[in-house]
Order: sequence, then structure tokens, then C-alpha cells
Amino acid sequence: MAEKVLIYSRFPKAQMVRIGERFDLLDAGGKPPLSVFSADELKDVRTMITAGGHVLPAEVMDMMPALGAIICYGTGYDGVDFKAAAERKVVVGNSPGANAASVADLALTLMLAATRRLIPADQYVREGGWSDRKPSPLMAPQPGNPGRKVGVYGMGEIGRKIASRVAAFECDVAYTNRTKYDELPYRYEPDLAALVEWCDVLMIAVRAGAETHHIIDAKMLKKLGPNGYVVNISRGSVIDQAALTQALADKTIAGAGLDVFETEPHAPDALTAFPNVVLTPHIGGHTLDSHIGMQDCVIANLDAFYAGNTLPYAVKA
Amino acid sequence: MAEKVLIYSRFPKAQMVRIGERFDLLDAGGKPPLSVFSADELKDVRTMITAGGHVLPAEVMDMMPALGAIICYGTGYDGVDFKAAAERKVVVGNSPGANAASVADLALTLMLAATRRLIPADQYVREGGWSDRKPSPLMAPQPGNPGRKVGVYGMGEIGRKIASRVAAFECDVAYTNRTKYDELPYRYEPDLAALVEWCDVLMIAVRAGAETHHIIDAKMLKKLGPNGYVVNISRGSVIDQAALTQALADKTIAGAGLDVFETEPHAPDALTAFPNVVLTPHIGGHTLDSHIGMQDCVIANLDAFYAGNTLPYAVKA
Repeated sequence: MAEKVLIYSRFPKAQMVRIGERFDLLDAGGKPPLSVFSADELKDVRTMITAGGHVLPAEVMDMMPALGAIICYGTGYDGVDFKAAAERKVVVGNSPGANAASVADLALTLMLAATRRLIPADQYVREGGWSDRKPSPLMAPQPGNPGRKVGVYGMGEIGRKIASRVAAFECDVAYTNRTKYDELPYRYEPDLAALVEWCDVLMIAVRAGAETHHIIDAKMLKKLGPNGYVVNISRGSVIDQAALTQALADKTIAGAGLDVFETEPHAPDALTAFPNVVLTPHIGGHTLDSHIGMQDCVIANLDAFYAGNTLPYAVKA
Repeated sequence: MAEKVLIYSRFPKAQMVRIGERFDLLDAGGKPPLSVFSADELKDVRTMITAGGHVLPAEVMDMMPALGAIICYGTGYDGVDFKAAAERKVVVGNSPGANAASVADLALTLMLAATRRLIPADQYVREGGWSDRKPSPLMAPQPGNPGRKVGVYGMGEIGRKIASRVAAFECDVAYTNRTKYDELPYRYEPDLAALVEWCDVLMIAVRAGAETHHIIDAKMLKKLGPNGYVVNISRGSVIDQAALTQALADKTIAGAGLDVFETEPHAPDALTAFPNVVLTPHIGGHTLDSHIGMQDCVIANLDAFYAGNTLPYAVKA
């Protein structure tokens, strides 16, 4: 008989098809498992699949007393209470790198679209402003990419792929990261403030967590400056969203490209009103190949766990 | 006294400021010069500035009997009647390469936005579909870039910059071009049909003219296939726009990114109704640095002409 796997977060059905072919899935669909399944149904559930950003506290773990592994679908694992997991001897796995190209590609899409004002441009054509030769202040020429200073915050797999793509646009690339990598052909800045002071476009590719919470605040946005753009494909928590909204309103910065938000799925009206932002519904890792890669990691982790082996894609807390 | 220069096409005033500081500009603003200025005012005009795609026939040249040089603002010169110019001993100049990075960047922006469905994604967030968790078939995951086959049609300065940018996205790149360049690290296809048969995304960077008119027709679009995208930043005339509209309607291809159209400024309603296209109002060369580069070429051409020298940026017909 197939092993039981609890699905904690709300995933589109299509993403679980391959996993469902090998395991007996109990889909809680984003609700507390005990509100969907009985204690009896959950008592022998040993593994669960979660979206890394979804808050997963001790009390949810305790709904499955036999729980041994939490498998994050994706790279992130910031929602998992690692202390609680460790106390319960629950291991945590993720899908490192499987979505890196997809996320980096969206970061570039957002950067290019925001700096080139693609959304107003498409709208100008569709709504007939162009054929009517209506004045379009939003269509005034903007700075181009050659020589543009792009700062990458976080130089993991996604940050590296962002940097190599940005470099192809003849931009200058710098980064900051806990570790300096001498093999990388990019300028290194020792801290975020120096990077932000230097760059015109800030690409946020840092891992979310307590130490990066609201690290992009009003002060940082002021450093980014009136020609500056911020692109976030990491987690909404990294940016103080109220400060960002204010900075866009008073033109402290020039624009933004955002795939992630503080409270998902929700982009506040104050943000969606700006023409100089590009907004996507957390689709960074959302390509067919990326999903297959993430599913491969999930399946490999589950197979290893049930075989009594260590997870091939384990998260070290 | 400053020399007179006729401005033939309709240009935003900002683009002529630097040129106006050195020359006495007579701005016809897109109208036949004789409908705006008297024959007497035009009789000693020796140079004119035009947008390369703007039709410039013999009869317009004859409105300025002293005409000696036609200076195209931009790379293109397809609107100029070269035979008529040669008969009148009028030289033609352009701004080669000055806008190549800007145009290539827009090509990538269109490719990324179309293949990632950026316009519907932004709309889904702005209109509240995401927060309401409305089903969004348009947001289904699409193929990603790694391994994507991208064909570049035309390997001039713009085509080369498109190819190097596309390669950074881990795509496979091929091209077709009259000349095969052995130094380029991309696969060469001897003709357009073979390139289109091979690729998933066709990037049109070929020079417009009689031999490329409607070369992308219903047959080519069928070769591109149901997962194929076409991106055009060259000239609208290269694509049979009616065939493209039909191919989008019956899903012969997956989508398109278009900066240029058959009759500008006009994108027909049949095109603007598709959610799987991205449309921009011919802004390929439209960045601040690109405009400065093009103005540098225009000024250098005018200065040379009035000094009695050959044009530094001359077009060989």
C-alpha cells in the first residue's frame, strides 16, 4: 500500500499529479490538517509537503504524531519552525536550485518590464492611445541597460543566475552576500547599504528569515534613490511594504517589480494603483521544467525517507 | 548663421533639442513640407532628417530643390527611395548601431513577457483575481528558458545583441543571415524556413525591404507551431499581419511580442484583443542613451555634409 503524505499548503492539483501516482495524498488544501481529517486519519502520517513560505508551527506538526519529515516544495523553508521540528526529530527537505533558472528569469522579466515601462506601453497600444496620438508622459524615454548598475542581494543559485543574465545586458553587476566568491566576475560590496548606495536596480535574491525581515526599509529605499528600481522575487517579508508604497508615492524611487508580497495572495490597492510597478502573483518558480525539477526533489526526498535513508535534499537548520 | 535642416517626420520635440542648438530646424511634423512651408522657405534647404520607416518619395525630395542629404534618425532607411535620391545626387545617412542595445533589450523584454504571460499576470494581481483566488487558466505554468530553441533572423548589430542576451538565459541559439559568421558561437541555419522549423521563439531582427516583405506568412507561422512565439522589433512589413492575427486566433502559434506593425501608429483591434501577445508602440530604440547615440550620428552626419565631407554614417544603397 502506498504511504500516506499530507499536503499542508494549497497547491494546484496539477503540481501533485506525479507525487500522487506514488503516494496516498491527504490534501488539507491550506487548512489545519485536523480541520479536514480526523485524528485517526492523521495518526500514521509520517511525511508532509508544504510550501516553504507557509507558516508551519509546532501545533500543526503535533496534529501528526508520527511525523518524521517535512518536505518543502520549492527552495524556501522560511515558514517552518525548525526548533519545533528538531525537538520532534522531524527532518526538513526542500528542492534546492530546481527553480533557480525560472526565478532568475522572472527577476529579469520584472527588471526589464519595470525599467522599460512595459505595462503602460502595452496598455497605451491596446487602449488606442497610440493610434490616437495621445500624449503619453509615461512613454518618455528611460535610461537603457548598458552601463546600468545592478546590485544583486544574495548570491545563492538564484542570485548567480540573475547576475549572469544581467551581465549579458551590458550592465555593471555587483553583489553582497555573507560569503565573497573570488571566482565570480562581479564587484563585491561588503554590506547591503553600500550595494544599495551604488546601484540603480536592486535585485533581491536573499533567503528570507528573521535577519532579513524588513531589511529594505524607508532608509534603504532613500539610498536607492529617485532613478532606482527594486525587484523582489525572494519573499515579501524582506521589504517593508508600507515603506515601499510610500517611496513609490513620493517618488523616492523610480519603480518596482514584485513577485512576492507581505501577505499573499494579496497586493494592496496602494501598490496596484502605480503604473511604474510590475506585479506578478508569486510565479517565480512557475514554469513547467521548474515544477518537474521541484517534483523530482520532493519524490526523491520522500522515497529516501521511507527507505530509511537521509534526505538527498535536506535543509540544514 | 545656422544652416537650415528640414524635419520631415513627426518627432517628439525632446529628440530634436540638441540638433536645434546647432541648426535652424524647419519642422514639417510629418506633413508634406510644401504644405507647411513656402517654396521660398524651402528653396535653400540642403538637408533633411527623417525616420527611416517613413515613406520618402521623389516628390518630397523635389520640394527642396537644393537637397543634398537625407539623414535618417535611427538605423532603418527602408522608407527612402534610394533610386530617386541617387538620381538627385542626394546622399543618405543613418545612425547605425546607436540603438542596437536598446532594441535588443526590448526584444528580450517582449520574449520574456510573452512566454511568461506577464501582461495577464500583472492584470490578475491588479484586478484582484489573485486575492480572490479566482481560477486563472492563463496562469498555468509555461515552458521555461533553459533549453528553449531561439532563432534569430538577421545577424546585424541588433541580432548579435539579441543572441548574446538570449544565450545568457540558457537557451539554445541559432540564426540565419545572408552571411555565416564562423566566429559566432551559434548554430547557423542556411535559410529562414529551416530556422523557423527548428525554433520555439523566432526573433525578427532582419532589415526591412522588398525581399523581406511579408516573409513571415501563414506557412512560416505554421512551421513555428503551437508552442512557438514570434517577436518582432524590426519592421511591421516583415510579417503578414493578417496571417499572424489568424495564427493567434486559431492557436497555430502560442503567442507574440510586437513592437512594430504594418500601419503605424496602429495595432488592429483583432491583435489587441489577444491576452497572449505583448504590444509596444515602436519604442525599440527608445531609451535615453540610445537617443543620445542617434543624435550624435545625426549631428556628425550634418556637420560632415556642411563641411563638404562624406558622411561618417552613410548608407550604401
